[in-house]
Amino acid sequence: MTTDAAADIAAAGQRKRSERSGRPQSTEIDQTILKATLDVLADVGFDALSLAEVARRAGSTIPAIYRRHADKHQLVLAALKSELAELPIGVTDTGNLRDDLLDLAQRIATALTARRARLFAGLVLARRDNPELLDLLSTELHRIAVIGWQEVITRAVGRGEALNDAVASSILDDLPGAYLLGKTLLEGRPPEMRHLEAMIDKVMLPALLSSQDNADRS
Amino acid sequence: MTTDAAADIAAAGQRKRSERSGRPQSTEIDQTILKATLDVLADVGFDALSLAEVARRAGSTIPAIYRRHADKHQLVLAALKSELAELPIGVTDTGNLRDDLLDLAQRIATALTARRARLFAGLVLARRDNPELLDLLSTELHRIAVIGWQEVITRAVGRGEALNDAVASSILDDLPGAYLLGKTLLEGRPPEMRHLEAMIDKVMLPALLSSQDNADRS
Repeated sequence: MTTDAAADIAAAGQRKRSERSGRPQSTEIDQTILKATLDVLADVGFDALSLAEVARRAGSTIPAIYRRHADKHQLVLAALKSELAELPIGVTDTGNLRDDLLDLAQRIATALTARRARLFAGLVLARRDNPELLDLLSTELHRIAVIGWQEVITRAVGRGEALNDAVASSILDDLPGAYLLGKTLLEGRPPEMRHLEAMIDKVMLPALLSSQDNADRS
Repeated sequence: MTTDAAADIAAAGQRKRSERSGRPQSTEIDQTILKATLDVLADVGFDALSLAEVARRAGSTIPAIYRRHADKHQLVLAALKSELAELPIGVTDTGNLRDDLLDLAQRIATALTARRARLFAGLVLARRDNPELLDLLSTELHRIAVIGWQEVITRAVGRGEALNDAVASSILDDLPGAYLLGKTLLEGRPPEMRHLEAMIDKVMLPALLSSQDNADRS
């Protein structure tokens, strides 16, 4: 914490100096360093990631990285947070449940780029020694995924569509997100439109519209 | 191919010599080398895997590996095939659809060990330069998963349970396997019993027992 605080103060000083001297905006360098970190992470994973390589790709220096991040671990955490902040959460209100679900599924499929799949794989591999990294990723992805589906369902209920709430809360927790991620990793490419439609028409809608009898079975 | 054939002949000669001289059975060394390869792969991924480290962990030598496998790529392919051969395919006939589904889901969840998740992540990361590796894994895992679920469904139809076949063929292609894999990777541990039950009771059974109307919607 003390190291972090010192780094923050150092970084703030750096920003002020940079603004005065007309060098590139420090926030721009911040972003370039985080982007380079994500690139190296997607290429070689966490263990093989070196600050020297990050500095080289960012056109920066190792001390410049240390002025912003206490260590490699904190650098990767910051890079991940910036990547996660770019993920699509909001969903379009199309006026009906099926199209709302499809819109969200498409946003998630689009977000699941090959680069993000590699990034994620690199973190899974690093997990044993760095559980916080994947925990952050899991928590954030889970939060993002659940919020989107819950918004779609709430809107459908508001429209007066008769949904099985008992199913909604359980199915939305993780099924669509985990399925799309698993499929992307298994096949090395994002799911196609017909897979998104099959998930919604043959799995999610029948479950959401099922009678309470089915839901009570468990 | 010529190199492979030469290696096969060399390996066969090696086996004969080994049997005569009372040294450990060559098939035992074969397995030890493949197991060491999987261990190294799960630890450091494909790129950082060195034959020297595999030889060290197997208590063997680099030439002994080259007598069996043309190169690192072939070694990893052979190790993967041996790992996949151990995965559970068969399912118990419990006498009813729900328990058959649960039994298969439990087998898959049990097979999804942390080591296999790391192994898989290491291959996803290596995919860009070695598409055959993940293609083999995808094809085999897909085949294994689909065969199991299809067997369960066929048995339920044989018992006279009224299933929606149009849904069965699409949902079984990849949903349960991809969901369980995605959830395992996302959370770093195999799904718990309550997740397997939720998947079956709230998603699979409602879909499988849904009317043809729902299936025709797509």
